[in-house]
Amino acid sequence: MSKLTFGAGIWHFATYVDRYATDGYGPAKSLIEMIDLAGKVRDLSVVDINAPWSADVSVDEVEVALKRNNLSVIGITPEIYNREFSKGAFTNPDAGIRRRANEVCNDAANLVRRFGASYVKLWPGQDGWDYPFQVDHKQLWRHSIEGIGELASQNPDLKFVIEYKPREPRVHMSYGSMARTLLGIEAMGVPNVGVLLDFGHALFGGESPADSAQLAIDHGRLFGMDVNDNLRAWDDDMVAGTVHPIELFEFFYTLRKNNWEGVWQLDQFPFREDCVEAADMAIDFLKHIDASLDRLDWDALAAAQNRQDAMGAQKIARQALFGF
Amino acid sequence: MSKLTFGAGIWHFATYVDRYATDGYGPAKSLIEMIDLAGKVRDLSVVDINAPWSADVSVDEVEVALKRNNLSVIGITPEIYNREFSKGAFTNPDAGIRRRANEVCNDAANLVRRFGASYVKLWPGQDGWDYPFQVDHKQLWRHSIEGIGELASQNPDLKFVIEYKPREPRVHMSYGSMARTLLGIEAMGVPNVGVLLDFGHALFGGESPADSAQLAIDHGRLFGMDVNDNLRAWDDDMVAGTVHPIELFEFFYTLRKNNWEGVWQLDQFPFREDCVEAADMAIDFLKHIDASLDRLDWDALAAAQNRQDAMGAQKIARQALFGF
Amino acid sequence: MSKLTFGAGIWHFATYVDRYATDGYGPAKSLIEMIDLAGKVRDLSVVDINAPWSADVSVDEVEVALKRNNLSVIGITPEIYNREFSKGAFTNPDAGIRRRANEVCNDAANLVRRFGASYVKLWPGQDGWDYPFQVDHKQLWRHSIEGIGELASQNPDLKFVIEYKPREPRVHMSYGSMARTLLGIEAMGVPNVGVLLDFGHALFGGESPADSAQLAIDHGRLFGMDVNDNLRAWDDDMVAGTVHPIELFEFFYTLRKNNWEGVWQLDQFPFREDCVEAADMAIDFLKHIDASLDRLDWDALAAAQNRQDAMGAQKIARQALFGF
Amino acid sequence: MSKLTFGAGIWHFATYVDRYATDGYGPAKSLIEMIDLAGKVRDLSVVDINAPWSADVSVDEVEVALKRNNLSVIGITPEIYNREFSKGAFTNPDAGIRRRANEVCNDAANLVRRFGASYVKLWPGQDGWDYPFQVDHKQLWRHSIEGIGELASQNPDLKFVIEYKPREPRVHMSYGSMARTLLGIEAMGVPNVGVLLDFGHALFGGESPADSAQLAIDHGRLFGMDVNDNLRAWDDDMVAGTVHPIELFEFFYTLRKNNWEGVWQLDQFPFREDCVEAADMAIDFLKHIDASLDRLDWDALAAAQNRQDAMGAQKIARQALFGF
Repeated sequence: MSKLTFGAGIWHFATYVDRYATDGYGPAKSLIEMIDLAGKVRDLSVVDINAPWSADVSVDEVEVALKRNNLSVIGITPEIYNREFSKGAFTNPDAGIRRRANEVCNDAANLVRRFGASYVKLWPGQDGWDYPFQVDHKQLWRHSIEGIGELASQNPDLKFVIEYKPREPRVHMSYGSMARTLLGIEAMGVPNVGVLLDFGHALFGGESPADSAQLAIDHGRLFGMDVNDNLRAWDDDMVAGTVHPIELFEFFYTLRKNNWEGVWQLDQFPFREDCVEAADMAIDFLKHIDASLDRLDWDALAAAQNRQDAMGAQKIARQALFGF
Repeated sequence: MSKLTFGAGIWHFATYVDRYATDGYGPAKSLIEMIDLAGKVRDLSVVDINAPWSADVSVDEVEVALKRNNLSVIGITPEIYNREFSKGAFTNPDAGIRRRANEVCNDAANLVRRFGASYVKLWPGQDGWDYPFQVDHKQLWRHSIEGIGELASQNPDLKFVIEYKPREPRVHMSYGSMARTLLGIEAMGVPNVGVLLDFGHALFGGESPADSAQLAIDHGRLFGMDVNDNLRAWDDDMVAGTVHPIELFEFFYTLRKNNWEGVWQLDQFPFREDCVEAADMAIDFLKHIDASLDRLDWDALAAAQNRQDAMGAQKIARQALFGF
Repeated sequence: MSKLTFGAGIWHFATYVDRYATDGYGPAKSLIEMIDLAGKVRDLSVVDINAPWSADVSVDEVEVALKRNNLSVIGITPEIYNREFSKGAFTNPDAGIRRRANEVCNDAANLVRRFGASYVKLWPGQDGWDYPFQVDHKQLWRHSIEGIGELASQNPDLKFVIEYKPREPRVHMSYGSMARTLLGIEAMGVPNVGVLLDFGHALFGGESPADSAQLAIDHGRLFGMDVNDNLRAWDDDMVAGTVHPIELFEFFYTLRKNNWEGVWQLDQFPFREDCVEAADMAIDFLKHIDASLDRLDWDALAAAQNRQDAMGAQKIARQALFGF
Repeated sequence: MSKLTFGAGIWHFATYVDRYATDGYGPAKSLIEMIDLAGKVRDLSVVDINAPWSADVSVDEVEVALKRNNLSVIGITPEIYNREFSKGAFTNPDAGIRRRANEVCNDAANLVRRFGASYVKLWPGQDGWDYPFQVDHKQLWRHSIEGIGELASQNPDLKFVIEYKPREPRVHMSYGSMARTLLGIEAMGVPNVGVLLDFGHALFGGESPADSAQLAIDHGRLFGMDVNDNLRAWDDDMVAGTVHPIELFEFFYTLRKNNWEGVWQLDQFPFREDCVEAADMAIDFLKHIDASLDRLDWDALAAAQNRQDAMGAQKIARQALFGF
């Protein structure tokens, strides 16, 4: 059986606000409190941390908190989607804001070095458009590519991962699908930019996450991944395995088949749930998937896929996952 | 030509937060500032106000601000979707919170009386469920009906309107469609509960807003309406007329055909736009629709609809709306 | 353990055409051949048969074929969605066609009597509209209600079930959701019209099938059901359990909880699969669900639902379904 | 004012079947009858023809029919999505069927030469998958690329265009989006394969058609286009301009801005409408769009887009399209 490493975005342990519950789904928490909650999850080893964080918490304090919880840092996610960047980070119409996005990301790069993390995680959620006629699509896409390409060139010692999503908070996000993101990365022409595949974003975008993973792997660009679940029509960030267990299984099947090695991360937003319980729930399911992969009849499945035999393939997968 | 009255939810003039831009899309505004902004819209006469509002603003101050801006109040929207009610208002599993929802709505009823408004607007956005197996659907729906039925009985002198929406912030909202809401209202057996039809919510739910309006009218329950636009897959609350001008036209055609008289309200969330300009934009389009209704060949359209002649009907509508 | 009866629409064993593969997904089959295929499914007891069928097959021949395959008839589905009714059956703009729809359905009623079946199954898939402005929504809905109400009054000894669906082949179908259908049935004011809940249609319409089942049961109108699966955005009619096993489990949990007794039917379209294997696949999964319901900790689940405790409820359901 | 050339797929003038109305939406028509109907459309100059067509119609007869209707051929669409190819054309698990797909496309290439047409139009609608675990995604995508790459190499004198679509008839189509298709074309490494952008397919896929057009142009691959309309959730192939006039306007704005020159084609399926009237309706709207582009304040719009000023840009577009 494989030895897995589990991770989570530190925001999994935050308190959320949205446009209705503007006073939040509970009392706000400090980054240190979030780290201590992450430490309570049974099998969590690594976290992804947003930066910059509140000025009253030092990097040293974060380090201490991580250490006492046996956590290390896999990535730093620069906050390029808050008020300052609400009209875009890399694609903001204001060149000064685009410069600021670059600075914030370079600061994140320094944190990656400081924490010995694996990458800067870029989620340009405000880069896109809302209305027909609002933008010059050629220019917007050019800025999308140049902004990240520049970062990669400035930091050749580091990796950058782009987490695409079809939309939200913009009505259209420029890095909206796996294929679009790979097109953009190819245009950058740098080796150190890859994709972080969010299982739920792929579902939301009408993709088969297993297919998207394979595509990124075949381009040598699957640098990271995380999981959650949704109803395919929005980024609900529900607990992994609660709605689409079979496609989640196919996703991890594809990763193992390709000998992809990396952290199995969670990107969940437990708005109304206990965040530690929600993480434990998901990790328990991921372990079940891992054990199911051990049980799977790989040769028979490959043969069924070779025939594109849907029923045959499903029977084999079902046997492993449901045990009948 | 008809004399129209235009209105807007006062939140049209707020600053928004969401789960990403937690520091907001701009500096926060007080209710008084929002009213003053509403006053700048060229043709706005009435507003819908959320309550309770910040304790440092008195009802008298609100009244003064409304008066100086020539605005009156059409409805009060009790805040039954913030932190306290994040697991539900009328359907909260905690009977104490359900009681609190009743109190907050009764307080809103008193404000309706104080302002001489038309109704209490109920938007039970947190009433619903997220996960399979989470709730007892029979009980949840019973609570949905009883909670509002009780309010109506407690305030027989007032009207209550339910604004349904398929989802957000819950993954499923119990008052999720026009038909479901009418079923619930019929079960209440009271005369003073009706529907506020949000054009965008109907589109989002896969309904034809014109059909939903007709259905509510035929049940004697179309007590209010508001408009906006979206991409049919989420409640984007974009500016009315920017994406679906033809269905918007059909919606108002249906209202006029039924001699429905009421305020043409806006429920828009201009996250990144100037809120006054966004309201003016929408109202200009609504005036164009009103003028197009004057130009419309009503008899020819009725004849085409009698034949269910899609091309014939569209030609007549197009002529009125686009002028060719 | 419960004794289940499994059924299927006879079209499960047909060869399909669509707008692209106009020469079909294989050679056409006669009704007798379809019945013989149905007979090969391991645990199938009842079928729903479309009528009228090809004139060269007599009722007696059908009876013989059913008998030799140990099959009985649960329902007759009149073909009110083919060329003659392509602009609507009950809502056709031509009164003569509406009369023809009535005749075809009365003929189906006679077959129900002849076969000792349970109901006439109405699927008015062509009743609806495509374009904005195409129809008078008031009239269309009135025709929808009157057409079926008339049938029910003409045949008080029989049951009629309406199978709603959001759309296809019309862009909007008038019986488009559970709540809308119940509203229509209430307006008919007859005891012998109910709903046939198609699991996939509910998913497609953004409903939770378990919630829709509960609603129909609470109105005393859940007369039948069938299952399949899809990607929530279209009526894919895939094999039950292959995409949404957890919501399928919740659906049957709701039926058993309410002591609903009836046939567990399949409504699948195995375009490219072996139809017998596809039925066996689904029935095997349904048996697994039935066994999981036996294993389920019902009291603990009721307690979790009483708290609306999503994580707690999911853990209990997961334990029963996945065995961990 | 620009001189436009209008075209249509010849299937616009066919009679359709679907999985319900298996006897068709009217009496079948011969290819010659379809051409004669195309000839009745007021401003139609070119058609795209499916091949092979019925053996009882010769190429010469087609040529004569085209001539008498003043029509020429823009493309030939090989029928690689009927029964023979129902499990895939380029990606069929059977190498013999893949070979057959190649033959059918080479036959189409010969017809392109014979008619002096512009391209072979490839719509691999059966190339994809339905169920989780059904296919080896790496292999499927490799076959998708190699199959078309081989065709392009065999016919270096001709152009091939790929018309992508998210799905239907497969639940997932391998050429499912603009970006995915461009990735595939880049992998082929040939100059003579491009994209045919179907406006409705882009909408259906959650794309902004204007953005997709710009992306294809920037890759030098926008070889063709066609228009229609839908409700964004399915390929409804409704009449262009009846639902999304503003995005249609933005699409043509983008084409003119880039000096893209080509035929404005229709890909509509008027199931229940008069096919000539449906084409005339669409072309009238396209002419209105063309005239609106003449009226548009291009400099002001560019300036607004430079600021990403949604309201400003919409006002300018609205002025041109609606005349107020």
